[in-house]
Amino acid sequence: MNIYADNAATTRMSPAAIEAMTVCMKEQYGNPSSLYSLGQRARETLELAREDAARVIGASPKEITFTSGGSEADNQALRSAAAAGKKAGKTHIVSTAFEHHAVLHTLDALGREGFSVTLLDVHADGLVRPEELRAAIREDTCLVSVMYANNEIGTVQPIRELGAICREKGVPFHTDAVQAVGHLPIDVDADNIDLLSASAHKFHGPKGVGFLYARRGQRLTSLIEGGAQERGKRAGTENVPGIVGMAAALREAAGGMAEASARLVPLRDRLIAGLGEIPHSALNGDAEKRLPGNVNFCFEGIEGESLLLLLDDRGICASSGSACTSGALDPSHVLLAIGRKHDVAHGSLRLTLGEDATEEEIDYIVRNVKEVVEHLRGFSPVWRDLMNGKGQFIL
Amino acid sequence: MNIYADNAATTRMSPAAIEAMTVCMKEQYGNPSSLYSLGQRARETLELAREDAARVIGASPKEITFTSGGSEADNQALRSAAAAGKKAGKTHIVSTAFEHHAVLHTLDALGREGFSVTLLDVHADGLVRPEELRAAIREDTCLVSVMYANNEIGTVQPIRELGAICREKGVPFHTDAVQAVGHLPIDVDADNIDLLSASAHKFHGPKGVGFLYARRGQRLTSLIEGGAQERGKRAGTENVPGIVGMAAALREAAGGMAEASARLVPLRDRLIAGLGEIPHSALNGDAEKRLPGNVNFCFEGIEGESLLLLLDDRGICASSGSACTSGALDPSHVLLAIGRKHDVAHGSLRLTLGEDATEEEIDYIVRNVKEVVEHLRGFSPVWRDLMNGKGQFIL
Repeated sequence: MNIYADNAATTRMSPAAIEAMTVCMKEQYGNPSSLYSLGQRARETLELAREDAARVIGASPKEITFTSGGSEADNQALRSAAAAGKKAGKTHIVSTAFEHHAVLHTLDALGREGFSVTLLDVHADGLVRPEELRAAIREDTCLVSVMYANNEIGTVQPIRELGAICREKGVPFHTDAVQAVGHLPIDVDADNIDLLSASAHKFHGPKGVGFLYARRGQRLTSLIEGGAQERGKRAGTENVPGIVGMAAALREAAGGMAEASARLVPLRDRLIAGLGEIPHSALNGDAEKRLPGNVNFCFEGIEGESLLLLLDDRGICASSGSACTSGALDPSHVLLAIGRKHDVAHGSLRLTLGEDATEEEIDYIVRNVKEVVEHLRGFSPVWRDLMNGKGQFIL
Repeated sequence: MNIYADNAATTRMSPAAIEAMTVCMKEQYGNPSSLYSLGQRARETLELAREDAARVIGASPKEITFTSGGSEADNQALRSAAAAGKKAGKTHIVSTAFEHHAVLHTLDALGREGFSVTLLDVHADGLVRPEELRAAIREDTCLVSVMYANNEIGTVQPIRELGAICREKGVPFHTDAVQAVGHLPIDVDADNIDLLSASAHKFHGPKGVGFLYARRGQRLTSLIEGGAQERGKRAGTENVPGIVGMAAALREAAGGMAEASARLVPLRDRLIAGLGEIPHSALNGDAEKRLPGNVNFCFEGIEGESLLLLLDDRGICASSGSACTSGALDPSHVLLAIGRKHDVAHGSLRLTLGEDATEEEIDYIVRNVKEVVEHLRGFSPVWRDLMNGKGQFIL
């Protein structure tokens, strides 16, 4: 059995999105900035895709800037709000300790440029407490940035409440919604969101394209200078086929969202229950306030990397931490942020289900993870010590 | 007849590139940062594409960083050299007045951040004089950036000579080679190039992807912070299908380069001769030191925009200035840089031929441009005044 259970890393492309891109690449190769009809048709296609992107989050098309992906959108959102803040003499930013590195590393850079950053605690359940956000906002706060749904542990923040506090305090609110767009219903007005980042390849669209929503009045600064594309906010010839593919995938995802969620939640919970039977294991993140397809566990006494490789042998694609950091030897900053100890954080497993997951697949995963964990513990010195009473079980 | 003669704006995608991308999108959807085999196959595909890109310019794969296109590559090259320069107390940059806006606007931004910029004259023939570069380099020069071939008038600079001067003076040399890669033979070692920008959609590859070459030892700074992709120099999940499509197009372009050039040069010269018969017209840029497919004319007494729209009606896609600025009312900064007056610069026409251009098409273009220019002059008040002896012909 082959099961792709790493949909938070990237998704299999939707056939409709591939088809839309292929047609576009073959026929609509004009440059949208060109005056002749071939160029203008590409321009119209681009603007239709912008309407699609806007519609899914309740925005207006002029509020959508296409980017090369979620990381670029995060960088541009933070840099823009920071630049506006600096002009107004405000140089304090509030975020959380378990943001994606596209946010955290940009915050590090802003820190070196004189900004001060407060990172909110995400507690053991992986959730921000609204009252703590309220207490963290200062007179000189120019931005709050909180992930809509975490890429590792899948916890979904009380975005609407957090946004309402920012609105009340008059502070722009950014959310990295890379894991949420196409999976959860989003309404930027009701949710009080001012800036939002999205990435196509997380909802069955192509890699290399995403978008940044910026509410009217939120001034964007360019990361890439040059031509006047994207209303002067993002230079470079537009990736028309990629954007068209993103729009096709997004329409599909939005149309099937409620149904997918209703299908996935019971499967996710079956997977959580099955893996929970493994001794000395623990679910990471709140059991309910999480993405419909996300399961993340820690297992005591094993290394996540070995677990992944043995699961791969059995046809299961999964991850430990995020794909962006899977090359790194450091334990996941997200798991550390929710209070997991270094040793335990190393033995983590993330399974993120696709919309087409089946009960049979869930049972196959449970059976195999159980076997592999047992197998690895069989020759883990750490586990042997624990079993022999040397040291204490954490989980 | 339908003739796409705006290949400097963008090119029709190569069927081989589309096919390579489609296969990749369908089958290789893994995230290259993932440990399991599906991810590792995507990683291998990416590294093969990097070898292809490196080979075409005589670089080594580790010197290639994939970007979202030429503008991003230009921005990153300039920002990186500027950051390294600043650290060493060097804040002077030499470039030219007719660079692409991705370079010029980044230089404007660096100017606001305290850098001083010397823009070399490109003379009436659109060519930089090596001795003027030598004279412009100062003790505190941290970067020289000169376009390989101009995107509007197609003039090809004496890159090897310019590079040799930079090498001798110990100053890093960047070239925006967006119009040259896949069209002219480039050897970064022989040409003394330290940093080079390329864009896939200019050589029949996909939009939204390009690369930056940085010679070993040239330190790159990230424009986009986040994950550790591209050896930490460019965060964000790699656009694997786009990169694969770029590599396929580049292999094809490199293989057919000599033949395409041999075919195009006589066609280009036939077009230049034909349009040269129009009274009060002039070729922009040197007649020989130009891209094999580039023709750029000024016609006295007409507006370029009207010319383009009427040519579009006759099935000819062409441009006036670059696509990136075609929405702008300002005359081309390139034509002004070579000394054309505002009025004449407004009446410009760029025709950039594809490798499959034919003699029949050239003759069709010549016939139709002649007719349309005559037609437009027929109701141009400026032209009437000139014919009536009010004012002086410039051309």
